[in-house]
Order: sequence, then C-alpha cells, then structure tokens
Amino acid sequence: MTAGTSRPAGTGAARAGSADAPDVERRALVALGRVVEPPAPALVPLVDALGAVEVLERLRADRLEGPTSRQVSAYRARLDLADVDRDLAMAARAGARLVVPGDREWPPALHDLRAGRPLALWVRGAAGTGLAAAVEHAVAVVGARAATAYGLHVAATLSAQVAARGWTVVSGGAFGIDAAAHRGALSVGGTTVAVLACGVDVAYPRAHEPLLSRVAQDGVLVSEVPPGTGVTRGRFLERNRLLAALSRGTVVVEAALRSGARSTAERARELCREVMAVPGPVTSPLSAGCHEEVRARQAALVTDGDDVLDIVGQLGVDSRPERRAPPGPLDVLDPEDLRVYDAMPLHGAVPAGQLARASLLPVPDVLGRLGRMAVQGLVEATDRGWRRAVPTARRHG
Amino acid sequence: MTAGTSRPAGTGAARAGSADAPDVERRALVALGRVVEPPAPALVPLVDALGAVEVLERLRADRLEGPTSRQVSAYRARLDLADVDRDLAMAARAGARLVVPGDREWPPALHDLRAGRPLALWVRGAAGTGLAAAVEHAVAVVGARAATAYGLHVAATLSAQVAARGWTVVSGGAFGIDAAAHRGALSVGGTTVAVLACGVDVAYPRAHEPLLSRVAQDGVLVSEVPPGTGVTRGRFLERNRLLAALSRGTVVVEAALRSGARSTAERARELCREVMAVPGPVTSPLSAGCHEEVRARQAALVTDGDDVLDIVGQLGVDSRPERRAPPGPLDVLDPEDLRVYDAMPLHGAVPAGQLARASLLPVPDVLGRLGRMAVQGLVEATDRGWRRAVPTARRHG
Repeated sequence: MTAGTSRPAGTGAARAGSADAPDVERRALVALGRVVEPPAPALVPLVDALGAVEVLERLRADRLEGPTSRQVSAYRARLDLADVDRDLAMAARAGARLVVPGDREWPPALHDLRAGRPLALWVRGAAGTGLAAAVEHAVAVVGARAATAYGLHVAATLSAQVAARGWTVVSGGAFGIDAAAHRGALSVGGTTVAVLACGVDVAYPRAHEPLLSRVAQDGVLVSEVPPGTGVTRGRFLERNRLLAALSRGTVVVEAALRSGARSTAERARELCREVMAVPGPVTSPLSAGCHEEVRARQAALVTDGDDVLDIVGQLGVDSRPERRAPPGPLDVLDPEDLRVYDAMPLHGAVPAGQLARASLLPVPDVLGRLGRMAVQGLVEATDRGWRRAVPTARRHG
Repeated sequence: MTAGTSRPAGTGAARAGSADAPDVERRALVALGRVVEPPAPALVPLVDALGAVEVLERLRADRLEGPTSRQVSAYRARLDLADVDRDLAMAARAGARLVVPGDREWPPALHDLRAGRPLALWVRGAAGTGLAAAVEHAVAVVGARAATAYGLHVAATLSAQVAARGWTVVSGGAFGIDAAAHRGALSVGGTTVAVLACGVDVAYPRAHEPLLSRVAQDGVLVSEVPPGTGVTRGRFLERNRLLAALSRGTVVVEAALRSGARSTAERARELCREVMAVPGPVTSPLSAGCHEEVRARQAALVTDGDDVLDIVGQLGVDSRPERRAPPGPLDVLDPEDLRVYDAMPLHGAVPAGQLARASLLPVPDVLGRLGRMAVQGLVEATDRGWRRAVPTARRHG
C-alpha cells in the first residue's frame, strides 16, 4: 500500500499516547524518510507549515514548491522506494517505534536544530518513559574509535560517574570511546542512548551487536534513517548533530587533531551546548584534539564526572564543593609562627633565644608562639630547647 | 671592617660597568642582607628614598623610622651578623658577584615586585652579558619534585624547545621538574637560570652540585640571600616570587593539587605574568594541580614550547601557524562530490545511475563529478561501473 492513507500505523506499542501525532501524518513521515537523505532543511519548514501528508501529495503530483527543481527531481526519483508498511514491519520486528514531532516523547531539544531537525526518529527502548524523558538530563561522551587504554578507562569512569548521578550518557555506539561510554553508564545501572548513523535494526559495527542489544534493552537506540539503512560518511557526520542536540553538553574524551568527535563538538557549539574535553598526555596524538579544543578556549577542561556536572548541571543541584587538598597541620599557623617553626632543624632541639634570632622576633613573642604550637602538638620542649614534634611533609619549590 | 665605608667592594670582575651603583652603597646592601630576612617591604622604600648607607647608619644609631619598633629591634639584634668583607670573600670564592638596583645588569622586571623586590641579588654566571640580558626573554618552568617520568620528559622537551628558540628557561634547581627544565635548556646550548632559596655557593639539594655547577658555568645562578645561607620553608616560598618576577610567564609542568609550583603560579598571576599549565593523564595526582589551574581558567593550557611562545612571545616574532592536521585527498571535494564518492562501496564498482540515485543527484551531474574525481585520482571507471581508486582513511563518528 502507499503512504498517506488512514490505515493505522504499526503496532499499538509503537505509540506513546493518545495526544501523539495522527497516524496519517506518521505514515507520510515514514514515506518521506525514504525520499530524503537527512538533513532536509528545504522540506522541514514545508512539513511544519503544510503537514507531511500534504507535502507528500504535492511531491507525488509534482507541484511541491520550496525546494529547488533539482531537489524535487531527486526526491521524486526516490518516491518508489517508499514502502510504509514494510518499514513499519521492519521496525516492529526490531522492537522499534517511530517518534515524530508533536509526540509527547519527541525531545524538545531537537527544535534547536531548526530546519536541520530530523523529520522523525526511529527509537528502540525506553518504551515506558519515552525518549524525551531519557534525554532530559543528558551528556554526550564521544571520542576516538582507535582509543588508548587510558581513554577507554577515562570514558568508562566518567560516564559511570555522571550516570550514577542520574544523568543519561549519549554516544554513538562506535568502537573505542563510544563503547566505553555506553558500558560505563550501563555498569552502574544508568541510562545510555546510542544515536546511530544506520537503522536502529542494523548492528554496526557488527561486533557491537551484543552491546547495541543491551543498550536497546536497558537504554535507548535512536536513528533518523529508516530501518535497514547502512552507514555512510555523510550519515556519520549528520548523526553527530543529533548527538550534540540531544545533550546538554558534549565531552570529548580522546580525539586526534582531526576527528569525528571534534565535529560533534563543533555541532554542539553551534547549538550553544557546552563543550568539554578531557586532557591526557601531551605525548599522545589521541589527546591532541582535546588539548587543541581547550587551548583554543573552545572547550572547558574536565577531568571527571563531577567536573562535567559542574558545567552542564543545575547550580545547587548538581554542583560539588571546590576541589582542594585537605589542610595540613601547619596550615593553621600564621606566617610568624611558621618562621619560628622553620627556624627549628628537622631533627634536634634549639634554645628559644636562637629561634628568636633566626626568626627576627623578640624572645617573649617567640616563647608565646612556641607555647601555642606545643598545645597544637607541633613542637615540644626538651631540656636542650625546643624541637619539632611531628614529622610534616615539607612543601617547597 | 664595618659596612658603609668607601673601601672598594669585592673583585673587579664582580662589577658590570662604571655606571653601576657606588661601592659604599653596595657594601651597605651586603650588610642589610644579613640583617633582614627577605622580603623586606618596610626597608625597601627607605633604601630607595635614603640610600642603603643612610638606612644602615640610622639603624645602628637606633633612629630608623618607618619599620615598627619591633621590626627595628629584630634588625638591630642581627646587626652584629653583618660582615661585609667575609660575605664578599665568600662570594668571590664561589665566583659570585653582587647585583644591586641601579646596576646595568639589574633586571628591570624586578621592579614589578615593588616593596617586595630584593634588596640585592647574588649572581654566579653570565658575567659577560649580565643577568638583565639573560632574563630579558625568559620563561619559568616549574613543577613537582616527585615528578613522574612523563613530567620529566615533558619538562625537558618543552624547555629544550623554548631554549632552542632563544628563550631563557628559569627554574628553581630542585629535584624533578626543575632539574629536567634546566637540563632541557642546557641540552640545546640554551640559557638557563636557577633561582635558589639558599646562597649561590650552597649546593642544595646536595645531589645537584654537578647540575648547579653546570648552570653557573653555562647559565646563571641567582639568590637574594647571602652566601652560605641554607634553605627554609619561608625562603622557598619567597624565592618563588623571584622565579615569577624574572620570567614573562610561568609554566607548571606537573603539580599536585597542593604544591609549591602552584604558589609560583599564584605569584606570577599577582605580577600579571602569564601562567601556563601542561595537562597530563587525569588519573595522575601529579597532573591534578595543572588541570585545576586550567579548569579554573587561572592558567592557559600548553602542550609544547610552541604553545608557550605563542603566549609569552611577541606576535609575529615568536608565533607559529595554527595547529591543524594536513588535508587529506577528500578534503578538496565539495559536499555533493563526497555524497557521490560515499555512495560507492569500499570495494567493487557500481553503475553511475545507481550512484545518482543514492546521492540524490541527476545522472549528468554525477557523471561530471565522477570525471573530475577520476582526474584527481580518487575514482576510476571499470567495465562494471565506477569504483574508488585510492584507499582513504575513513573518518566517522
């Protein structure tokens, strides 16, 4: 059958609620998804204005105005690829559903993409709460496929930390940093979302079939391309705009100077999302992209999940106290106390008069300070004079 | 003999030229150096206003006004420690000379310390060019004593890089990062300055006697405390203000959250000098201080000597081109060329019509693009259609 009729779409489970977009509109969006390669900035405003049913009708009748005639020819050349029932059946077999603008689980954040927003999304997982709820507090964690052991460790740890604090970890399902990010979130029972460049029913990379199944079960798989669609370079790059848009901020864990993760960071900046980068050894080419982002003040430096939530979180809800070393025993001393203390040798006792001379303080003053420091357990009196009572780490230089 | 007489001070070699401060003034400064523990903000303005000879006379006569009566008592209690001839003889034996404000080799940068500036400096090395010339273009490279192999490597490499470009590397002569910084500069025949918390004739740490001798020979040793003086915690901390003041900027290579290197960085900020930090693994506590400096936007992130000179150097003289990866063969293609290229499988040939359909472009357009890409050596025609001609690194994600 053709798209645009009033036959109910897919299974009941594919719907998030009665307030969602009508079936005819959904079916028209499925058909348009076969006609265009995302993004479709010439079509999105038309769909918003006329509805997908009308846009599809005008396209079939070759009276669609807005896109260039060359674009319209290209769309029309692919009209016969559209088979709404087949796509819905493929999705149903994979446990996937269509989510369209107007649905209650459509993430409002996607509107920031304006005409670059997806026409619709295919979603596996989060059937109970819905996609919008899953990404309401979300951070993208992305990075190199050929990551180092260091990068994998940091990606997993940082993702586990933000997930443990209730934040969703969004990534791309790829080898390396992406996989470590998903696994880190899953390891603490957190929510993770994989945004794919292929159909949500396609295991790409093949070796990630178990990981992607696990994400579909405990988290969410999302894609804007129809079921069964494979990856292309262009789809990876356009997928990155969804990673960026679906998150409050993007964390780049490891990236070469030139990398796809940095393109996601660029997309995040365009969308006024936070961009963060994890430093690493300056000797590692896989940290060079991260360092360049920070050096050029395009990204904030983050070292762990707390740093990330300090930046993307809500003040007071997600922030943590300032990072500082615990005070040492000598931190309570004033500078003149310290001069007296420092005038004592590391080992052995000296008379108060000698301490007074060395510290340039009058003897009665020095005796008062020695007494207070003795009460604090820092110095002690002996029959040969005063000496240090506790071994303290010396902090020079 | 007492200080303040007109007898010529030290050896002729200790003087930078005839325009320098008069001998009586120099001798009075040597004596004051035994009376005060630096810094001496109560004395410096008096010396500037009255001259050291007059300040010393008033101190002896107990009619010095300005410092508190307690300070004056402490100074007077140490007057009998002053022995100018002994100090000058000790300096001469070590090959050291006294450099005082007004001398042509007094570094103008020290005036930024205002009343916190040293009364005088003891200097070993750079007898030909003088201290001021040695630090005219200088960067401080500082960090942890208990550095990691990574930190030592980076400190030496970065220091060699800035030294090779004609910049002087200033550090503190300590174990760890300091030593690596000095050695890195020396390794390329560059200039390095060690600013010590002890006398310039004292080998501290003991194991660094060979290194400090080498610095004295090929570079410069500097201290504000008299010959023979040992280290104290206070002297290390005050030494840090000299490290900061003598440099255009301070680079922290490795530092724990709490470290002396961060105190130098703080001094550099107070003096409106540049502060830079080298990132490292977020799993290393010895990089935590560096990361905190960058995270809190107190320091700029630097990864090598070029980054450092970009920040402290003169625009146009010391700057380098933007860091970017070299362009790949596909970078010359426009987005629609890329869509055609991406529509080709990694292996095997496909007809132009199929490429047109997949790339949403008209067949004549696709044929034109294929022809241009064939000229560029990116694709080739076969009897089964078009295929990719060169293996290209895929950059997805």
